[in-house]
Amino acid sequence: MPEKYTQKMKAKLLDIEAGKLIAIMNEIDAKEFGIFPLDRIELLNHRTKKAVVTVVDTTDTMVGEDEIGIFEDVSRLLDAKESDSLEVMAVGKPKSVEFIRKKMDGKKLSPDEIGAIIDDFSSNRLSEIEASAFISAIYILGLSLDEIVAMTKALIADGKQISFEGGPVLDKHSVGGVNGRATMIIVPIIAAAGYLIPKTSSRSITSASGTADAMEVLCNVSLTLEEIKEITEEIGGVIAWGGAVDLAPADDKIIKIEHPLSLDPEGQVIASVMAKKASVGAKFVVIDLPVGPDVKVKTKEQAEEMALKFLEVGKRLGMKLEVVLTNGSEPSGKAFGPALEAKYVMEILEGKISDNLVKKSCELAGTLLELAGGAKKGEGCRMATGLLSSGEALKKMQEIIQAQGGKILSSEGISLGKFKRTIDSETGGTINKINVTLLNNIARIAGAPADKKAGVMLFIDESDHVKKGDPLFEIYAENQRKIDLAEKFAKQNAVVEMERVILGKFG
Amino acid sequence: MPEKYTQKMKAKLLDIEAGKLIAIMNEIDAKEFGIFPLDRIELLNHRTKKAVVTVVDTTDTMVGEDEIGIFEDVSRLLDAKESDSLEVMAVGKPKSVEFIRKKMDGKKLSPDEIGAIIDDFSSNRLSEIEASAFISAIYILGLSLDEIVAMTKALIADGKQISFEGGPVLDKHSVGGVNGRATMIIVPIIAAAGYLIPKTSSRSITSASGTADAMEVLCNVSLTLEEIKEITEEIGGVIAWGGAVDLAPADDKIIKIEHPLSLDPEGQVIASVMAKKASVGAKFVVIDLPVGPDVKVKTKEQAEEMALKFLEVGKRLGMKLEVVLTNGSEPSGKAFGPALEAKYVMEILEGKISDNLVKKSCELAGTLLELAGGAKKGEGCRMATGLLSSGEALKKMQEIIQAQGGKILSSEGISLGKFKRTIDSETGGTINKINVTLLNNIARIAGAPADKKAGVMLFIDESDHVKKGDPLFEIYAENQRKIDLAEKFAKQNAVVEMERVILGKFG
Repeated sequence: MPEKYTQKMKAKLLDIEAGKLIAIMNEIDAKEFGIFPLDRIELLNHRTKKAVVTVVDTTDTMVGEDEIGIFEDVSRLLDAKESDSLEVMAVGKPKSVEFIRKKMDGKKLSPDEIGAIIDDFSSNRLSEIEASAFISAIYILGLSLDEIVAMTKALIADGKQISFEGGPVLDKHSVGGVNGRATMIIVPIIAAAGYLIPKTSSRSITSASGTADAMEVLCNVSLTLEEIKEITEEIGGVIAWGGAVDLAPADDKIIKIEHPLSLDPEGQVIASVMAKKASVGAKFVVIDLPVGPDVKVKTKEQAEEMALKFLEVGKRLGMKLEVVLTNGSEPSGKAFGPALEAKYVMEILEGKISDNLVKKSCELAGTLLELAGGAKKGEGCRMATGLLSSGEALKKMQEIIQAQGGKILSSEGISLGKFKRTIDSETGGTINKINVTLLNNIARIAGAPADKKAGVMLFIDESDHVKKGDPLFEIYAENQRKIDLAEKFAKQNAVVEMERVILGKFG
Repeated sequence: MPEKYTQKMKAKLLDIEAGKLIAIMNEIDAKEFGIFPLDRIELLNHRTKKAVVTVVDTTDTMVGEDEIGIFEDVSRLLDAKESDSLEVMAVGKPKSVEFIRKKMDGKKLSPDEIGAIIDDFSSNRLSEIEASAFISAIYILGLSLDEIVAMTKALIADGKQISFEGGPVLDKHSVGGVNGRATMIIVPIIAAAGYLIPKTSSRSITSASGTADAMEVLCNVSLTLEEIKEITEEIGGVIAWGGAVDLAPADDKIIKIEHPLSLDPEGQVIASVMAKKASVGAKFVVIDLPVGPDVKVKTKEQAEEMALKFLEVGKRLGMKLEVVLTNGSEPSGKAFGPALEAKYVMEILEGKISDNLVKKSCELAGTLLELAGGAKKGEGCRMATGLLSSGEALKKMQEIIQAQGGKILSSEGISLGKFKRTIDSETGGTINKINVTLLNNIARIAGAPADKKAGVMLFIDESDHVKKGDPLFEIYAENQRKIDLAEKFAKQNAVVEMERVILGKFG
């Protein structure tokens, strides 16, 4: 409707948080306005002079004619009281809806158009239907390099930034790995080498623990931007929960839309990672890209293609980047669950464990040191290993934990779930394959990541020989019911696959 | 989560219709369950033995730990009282979400997969995000002929069907036209020729009136399936509102998702039209496909491609179909708004008007008569014109109106808006172009279609010569404010474009 048709309506306060801006109108009024469910209206509260644009849903029962139902999110913004007289006006869709249509029609979007979409996304101005259409379009049609760069810049502009005094900022990111807390090893190594590494990490989405969940076992991870700046400048490193700071607020909203369909459009993943790195002013960045049938990136070809895009976006943003393809088809370390993973990492820093997680962490840290010029080409990994074995990385980690308000400074200080069950091998043989997804599921059934002390500890490696009755892994939980459920599930599923000599007999 | 983790929670009744099945869970409980906003849970009320699957949204304020907030839609299905103990269980997504992903990944869907999607769509089991992803995918990637046929059959299976005694059923459908009530002329002609034509029509979505809105000026259009059957078998024709009967319930839900982005994926439009025709057992169908820059189908090529798909789907469903491409770039008749359009149609049936709407209606009715074998090839239009000029179509229309409980049997019985304004030409010249979209907008600002008597009556045709001060059109409204707004808008916009002799001067 090009003309602004307005009408006064009586506010009916609905005592509910809707999590989005929505108002409820009687179907007769909606027809009067010529608006449809999910169209938008502007509400103006004359008494408080506050206005807000919401999406409309219609009803023939909930609110009467000349009434407008508003949820708490809306009444707060309008500072509205029951029966306030609100001026209601039909308004068009945000401009970015047109750009979403344009993308759906197969056209490329300009930086301004992408900026408008991200801005509306982050301000909750897009309905779930519109937001889903955008994510679907970029999933199906992809994003060009120019579009990825524009999206990265839009995500940066949308959030806050920190700049650090004293030395270049280094950063690392792992794209869709499955377990292992390399971050908690790499950060202290890099900081011990004298660089700044203000790492923000996520909590678990589908696995037994995220880096933020594991680090929280040792200390506080909900840091403010000021605390991140202060600790990083003083100690060199920090490991904080990214969700507590507004570095890329649009990101959370994008993930909420992607989750129901398990979508992760490549271009959006690259933009999202790069925006977070740029927001902390990172100049040297290493990207860990696990490849394997059970992780996000399935094939080497797919990984190489993605790596090239990462490099190009990095170049255009003025970062020095290296993408490292890692083996995503085997467990990275043996712990699953926040406390178990924190303990495992501390044991590595204490020099008690040497395994593939140590090797991977040192390779990644070494690559980062070479990128930043702190080590000669080919010398980085040795330097990283040196900082680890000398105890300097452990000392740095202890400083970080203390700076983040923590008191647990060694692996011994970490306590595990009260209930424990050991799962033994039912046959003897050689371990062919360990199913990481199932181990994560068992840890989650046992209570992780909400129960920090719950999880799974693995005793074996692929290619190990085991005898019947040898322990394969141990489950920890905080209550009887969960340990029972987890044990039952563990016994019903083939977590470990033995090498089979005879594949079948015929005749 | 492969394991079923259940927990007892206390129902907190939220006194609101959400229009979808949704429950609210505290963020701490959600984490415990390992579920995310928009995941699904099953709720079981032990007291009433009722169960339902809902989508979850999370909160940190609205409901406490161990409480589950349920909206009226859900509490009704559970027969739940405040503080009932509900068994809560995380459940997977409906199977059809996997098929939506499959389509997004560029693969073709089987009939069973499409059936599952339509079934979940119509039962509100898909969230708006999932539904939007499906519509986006079929908009971007299209549907194959097999998929369109499968979707048509799924839509038919999802709704109710009517079968009629006595003679073949004929039907017509116009795809995305802009104005003109050809249906109200064609139905009585076809019924007068002795055929059955049980027409269900829609209300206006974006125009000044839909066929159901205009017919409602004369009589009741909210008929039951039984009434449609009875009247059609007795009189031959009916013009009912499709929304009152459940011929294709999934359709309304699909349109609700499409509306915010103005999407109308071709394959879905074809399936939706054909399903409605099949549901009334139509054997002979004519499709009116207006082509022009301001209607849904922009070019002749696009129209021809769509026509071929319609024909093929018709063939596979055992219907005889003809698609007629009509000129969608000029107004079809001169009335905009329910009462004005009803009056205009009655004047045509009374033989008082002869214009392009008459011609188009007789062409379409004639095509239908030829298809059904009631007229020889090339004779249909003449036969239709004969039924119109003899007064037989008018008589049939009067029978239909009476059978649908109406009393207005002539154009004189129809009253128009109390307020009237005439818009005159500001210059003299030849009319080059009449903007139908603007005329619809003016009629809507004047109050149509909610105010049935509001609208616009056009006085001119394209290519007419007018002098300065000649009346161009008249606006009707039911109240002072709306007539003022409509007049102001009419004067600010170039509804009529004059032919320009001189296009510019340089130098």
